Amino acid sequence: MAQATKPGEFEIIARYFKPLARGEPNALGLGDDAAVLAVTPGKRLVATMDTLIAGVHFLPDDSPAGIAQKLLRANLSDLAAMGATPRWYLLSLGLSETTPESWIAAFAAGLAADQAEFFVTLVGGDTVKTPGPVTVTVTALGEVAPGNELLRSGAKAGDAVYVSGTIGDGYLGLLAAKGELSGLSPSFRQFLIGRYNRPTPRLGLGIALARLGSKDRVHAAIDVSDGLIADLGQICEASGGLDAQIELGQIPFSEAGGVAIASDSTLALKATGGGDDYELLIAAPPAVESTLLELGRAIGVPVTRIGALAEGSGKVRVIGPDGREQTSGPGGYRHF
Amino acid sequence: MAQATKPGEFEIIARYFKPLARGEPNALGLGDDAAVLAVTPGKRLVATMDTLIAGVHFLPDDSPAGIAQKLLRANLSDLAAMGATPRWYLLSLGLSETTPESWIAAFAAGLAADQAEFFVTLVGGDTVKTPGPVTVTVTALGEVAPGNELLRSGAKAGDAVYVSGTIGDGYLGLLAAKGELSGLSPSFRQFLIGRYNRPTPRLGLGIALARLGSKDRVHAAIDVSDGLIADLGQICEASGGLDAQIELGQIPFSEAGGVAIASDSTLALKATGGGDDYELLIAAPPAVESTLLELGRAIGVPVTRIGALAEGSGKVRVIGPDGREQTSGPGGYRHF
Repeated sequence: MAQATKPGEFEIIARYFKPLARGEPNALGLGDDAAVLAVTPGKRLVATMDTLIAGVHFLPDDSPAGIAQKLLRANLSDLAAMGATPRWYLLSLGLSETTPESWIAAFAAGLAADQAEFFVTLVGGDTVKTPGPVTVTVTALGEVAPGNELLRSGAKAGDAVYVSGTIGDGYLGLLAAKGELSGLSPSFRQFLIGRYNRPTPRLGLGIALARLGSKDRVHAAIDVSDGLIADLGQICEASGGLDAQIELGQIPFSEAGGVAIASDSTLALKATGGGDDYELLIAAPPAVESTLLELGRAIGVPVTRIGALAEGSGKVRVIGPDGREQTSGPGGYRHF
Repeated sequence: MAQATKPGEFEIIARYFKPLARGEPNALGLGDDAAVLAVTPGKRLVATMDTLIAGVHFLPDDSPAGIAQKLLRANLSDLAAMGATPRWYLLSLGLSETTPESWIAAFAAGLAADQAEFFVTLVGGDTVKTPGPVTVTVTALGEVAPGNELLRSGAKAGDAVYVSGTIGDGYLGLLAAKGELSGLSPSFRQFLIGRYNRPTPRLGLGIALARLGSKDRVHAAIDVSDGLIADLGQICEASGGLDAQIELGQIPFSEAGGVAIASDSTLALKATGGGDDYELLIAAPPAVESTLLELGRAIGVPVTRIGALAEGSGKVRVIGPDGREQTSGPGGYRHF
């Protein structure tokens, strides 16, 4: 139990975090024991929680604004995968003795920018000193109409598998950030690192999918955080043990990702297994395909068919351009 | 980004944490991207978040069940201070490489016991490996009728100050656990350590206070987590800058606390400034006193008048048995 010898927690909250709560009167200015929040009548509350740790989930010299945004966006991506509209978040900030105030200021500025972009408001949390690495946790709260939530568990044999945006940028961006990806132009390198550091939660697409009528309803959705192969495995398992088959040649890679893969063809499969893409992975009947593709065009986030589901036992197969099954190696990121 | 080489996260969740979500179908068995929760129609959602770190907020060799319960109870105490009924919680579990599975099992068993006692259900969270100390965060979610929430900010000059239960046991219990409190009988020592490790959130009292009619309404409430003096200062400040005066001779100490203080009279003031009591501190008009004392008797948690509020500038004075102002030293626990 440390007694404070310098001004600290209350000043930091007042200076950097109370301003982030201004949009929500019921956050009580972060000045009470808890926030009191009015969920929209008739809506369900959607709640998710993610933790990032320096040296594990981000590089210690990453920009504080980027860390803040990655943390918030990882949580918002979970809401997107449920089809929920984000509303509030709580933040636990575990800082080390040596974290400078400028780091905290930049971290809060990153949150402020994302609050404006994604219409969420800080409503509470905790600030603590840790003798270990900087550790940050967000609980994000959103809303969805009852019955509209997108689950992992509704996929059926015969469904096609779709993915939003491009896959592998998170994995390749991490390689690039660590200096392990050579031969890329500076702009492609920056693009991939940016995709790793500042993923885009597919909220517009998720919310639109949740609102589709019963005729066009998708069966299951998840966000690609642990890697496309592992996360598709989650859908297969949650849906009663389906098998999935995806075509490596159909995976949508970004232009930068395509250049990296062209110089090292083993990267295609690695990128497909890597994590941190925060795209939506969707299982839907083929009859819904035209609706999905049109939705993607309207929102400006391409939706691509990459495979199909069949009766089985929860196995995910990746088929190469030669028509043969690839060895996928360990299936995606696991936290331990 | 560590690739898993052994079974881990999913197995641990399945074995120890999915059973904790059984009571809530909409936790989706912890098997989806987020929980989908039905807030009771007409109720407000109350949300709070607290983090505990090994070596900072608990002793590294404390029992895992006790750590789990301290974490959950600290959060529930915040809900109690708002007058909210607890419903759900999310848990972020940052474990070290060396945390044995038996530790996780005991931690989960501690949660299970408290779920049964306080009628809350695990609905989501995150599990991560940390290279630092074990770091655990809970977001607790509760409900309160609109307008019934207890705030810090409503106190008025002329209000009396009340506290539930006994004060100082948290501080004295920490001393006892560290072997810095001599001359106590084993049972008193165990009592104080138990109060430090397993505080009792005053949910029954908080909920009852929130439900009092407008005639008997208390003006402000907070839970004593940072220390009675510091937390009373929070009420004074949030209520527009009142002054508080409390009588050291009126502070309710437990029998064990009284014995410790009898052998070292400087402990009385230290215990009043120390944290981790998780009692409720209440500001209310003197006319409400008989209602408060009766409520305390009915619930089995004594309520004691310890002082009063006046116009001022946010200062908390502690008056000793000799009628003179005491020096209070640094005002309670600050996180940094």
